[in-house]
Amino acid sequence: MKDGSGMRHAIGVDFGGTFIKMARVNERGEVEARAKIPTKEAPGLDGWLDAVGRGLEQLKDKTASADAPLAGLGVGVPGFVDFERGFIYDLANVPGWTNVHLAPRLEERFKLHVRVDNDVNVMALGECTYGAGRAYQHAVFVTLGTGVGGGIVINNQLYRGAYSMAGEIGHVSIRMDGIKSPQGRGGLEQYVGNRRLVERAVQALQQGRASQVRDLAGGDLTAVTVELIARAAKQGDVLALEIFDFMADCLAAAFASVAYVIQPQAFIVGGGVAQSGPVLFDPLRRHLSERLSPVFAERIVIKPAELGNDAGVIGAATLAMME
Amino acid sequence: MKDGSGMRHAIGVDFGGTFIKMARVNERGEVEARAKIPTKEAPGLDGWLDAVGRGLEQLKDKTASADAPLAGLGVGVPGFVDFERGFIYDLANVPGWTNVHLAPRLEERFKLHVRVDNDVNVMALGECTYGAGRAYQHAVFVTLGTGVGGGIVINNQLYRGAYSMAGEIGHVSIRMDGIKSPQGRGGLEQYVGNRRLVERAVQALQQGRASQVRDLAGGDLTAVTVELIARAAKQGDVLALEIFDFMADCLAAAFASVAYVIQPQAFIVGGGVAQSGPVLFDPLRRHLSERLSPVFAERIVIKPAELGNDAGVIGAATLAMME
Repeated sequence: MKDGSGMRHAIGVDFGGTFIKMARVNERGEVEARAKIPTKEAPGLDGWLDAVGRGLEQLKDKTASADAPLAGLGVGVPGFVDFERGFIYDLANVPGWTNVHLAPRLEERFKLHVRVDNDVNVMALGECTYGAGRAYQHAVFVTLGTGVGGGIVINNQLYRGAYSMAGEIGHVSIRMDGIKSPQGRGGLEQYVGNRRLVERAVQALQQGRASQVRDLAGGDLTAVTVELIARAAKQGDVLALEIFDFMADCLAAAFASVAYVIQPQAFIVGGGVAQSGPVLFDPLRRHLSERLSPVFAERIVIKPAELGNDAGVIGAATLAMME
Repeated sequence: MKDGSGMRHAIGVDFGGTFIKMARVNERGEVEARAKIPTKEAPGLDGWLDAVGRGLEQLKDKTASADAPLAGLGVGVPGFVDFERGFIYDLANVPGWTNVHLAPRLEERFKLHVRVDNDVNVMALGECTYGAGRAYQHAVFVTLGTGVGGGIVINNQLYRGAYSMAGEIGHVSIRMDGIKSPQGRGGLEQYVGNRRLVERAVQALQQGRASQVRDLAGGDLTAVTVELIARAAKQGDVLALEIFDFMADCLAAAFASVAYVIQPQAFIVGGGVAQSGPVLFDPLRRHLSERLSPVFAERIVIKPAELGNDAGVIGAATLAMME
C-alpha cells in the first residue's frame, strides 16, 4: 500500500461570501487537493450545487488516492444552521439562502454522506481536532474579525446546545449597562470587533494623541485598520498597546465567564488579529489570570489558532468524517 | 408485587454545615424515609462515618421495601470535589475536611456503590431529574442565597467541565470593571448575594428613602433581611420592587451570557429568594428577553425550583442511581 492510501478522506466546503473553498482532506487533517470558486459565479442554490459539482470533479482528478472511498462532504456556512436537519435558516451577507434544506439536496445530487454546520463551528472543530486545540478534549474556539465568533468542543465533539445555537461567545455580556445591540447589552463583539477597535484608535488620534498609527496610515484616519494598529503595537507604540490591552481585557472578561460556566482546558483564538502574537496574547493571559480564581486560572491555556485560512475546509471535512 | 416494591432505591446524603440530612429515595424521586443528624454530633471523618451508619440503620428500619436492593449512596457536600475520584479538596464552613478521599471510605465501610459531588451539582441533578427541570434535557440550575451556586445538566446528566468545577454561575462577570473578589471582577454573586441586597436596602433607608422595609424591620436596620425585602415587594413597596428589579436584571445579564454559551432549554432558580414568586420571576423573564436576541429568548424558559429543601437528598440519591 502506498503511503496515504487506505486512509479515510472527506471533502470540506468553506462557503464564504467571496469564495467557495473546497478541499479533499484526509483523516490526518492534511489537505490533499484544493478547489476555489468565486461565490458570485455560483448564484442561488442551483448555481451553488453546480459549482460544488465542478469542484468535486477537480478534487477527484487531482488526488493520488482516488480509489479510497470518500467518507462524505462537510459544509461550513456563514449563518444560522440546524445541524440535525442540515437546514440553513439564513446566511449573513449571502442573499437567497433563507430556509434552505441543504444537506438532503447535496446527498441526493452527489450520493455522499453530508453534514452542514455554521462556519465558526466548523473552524472550531478543525482547530480542536488538527490545529492548536488537538491536545485538548474540551476547548473553546474564538475567531476575531468584524464580529466575534465562537465554537465549543466538548469530548472532542462540537457542542451545539439545545437548539444548535450554542457557542456565541461574541454575545457574552461584559458590561450589563454597556452598548446595546440586537443581541442584548454589552456583548463582547461590541467592544472588540474590528470596527470598534479602529473607532477607538481614530477617536484617540482625533483628540490629538501622538501615535505611529497615524504615520502608518499616511496621515489618513480613514485608512486606519486593525492590522495597522497591530503593526504599531509591535513597534511599541503606546496608543496601539493600550488598544490591544483593552481588547485583551475585554476578551479576558468574557473568557472568565465562559471558563466559570463550562471550564474548558483551552481557549483557541483565531482570526486576523490573533496573528498579532504577544501584543495580544501576553495581556490576554495576564488579564484572564486576574479575572479567575487560581484553581481555574492554573487549569486554562490560551493559544493562537494554527490552521489559518484552512480551518474552514479542514473542519468541514472533519465534520463529515466524524459525525 | 406490592406497589413500590421492585423499584430501585438509593440513599441520598445532604451534608450541610448544620445538619446531615439523609433520605431513602426511589427511582420516581420520592422520599420514602428520612434521617437527620446535627453536624456537630458527627465530628471529623470518623464521627461523620458513624453518623451516616446510624442514619442508614434508621432508613433501613423505616422503609417498607427493605428487601429491594439499594442502588447506592450519593453524597452532596458543600465544597470543591473531584467527582471522578470521590475526593473532597476542601469544604466551606466545615473544618477538618481538607483532602478527604470520601468515596472509597464509604464504599469500604458500607459495601455500597458511592458517588460524591458538590452540593449544588447534586441539587441541580435532583431538580432537573424530578423537579422543575424534569421536562428538559438541558437545563441550568441556580440557587440564590449568601452566594450564588450553579449546576448544569446536559443530556440529563451533570456537566462538570474539564476538571469537575464547571457551572459556577455565581462567578460569571456582569461588569468587567465591577466589584473585585477572589474570583475576579463583577461576579454575579457580588451583586445578588443576600448580603449585597440587604446592603442595598439599608443604604437606601439610611439615605432617607421611605419604605415598608423599615417598618417590617421594626425600625431596626440591622434586622433587614432578604425575606423582609421580598415581603415588602409583594405589598408593592417601591424600594423593595426596585431592589428585586435590580437583582432580576443582574441575574438576566448573567443568564444571557450563559444562554449564548451553552443554550440550555431552561433556567431553574432555587434558594430562599426564589420563593418570592412573580416579584422576582416577572422582571427576570422580561430582562432576559431584553438581553437576548429573539431566536434565543423565545427558546428559553425560567422556572422556580420545586423540590425545596429535599433537592439535596433527592439529587444525591439520583446521583447514586444514575452514575
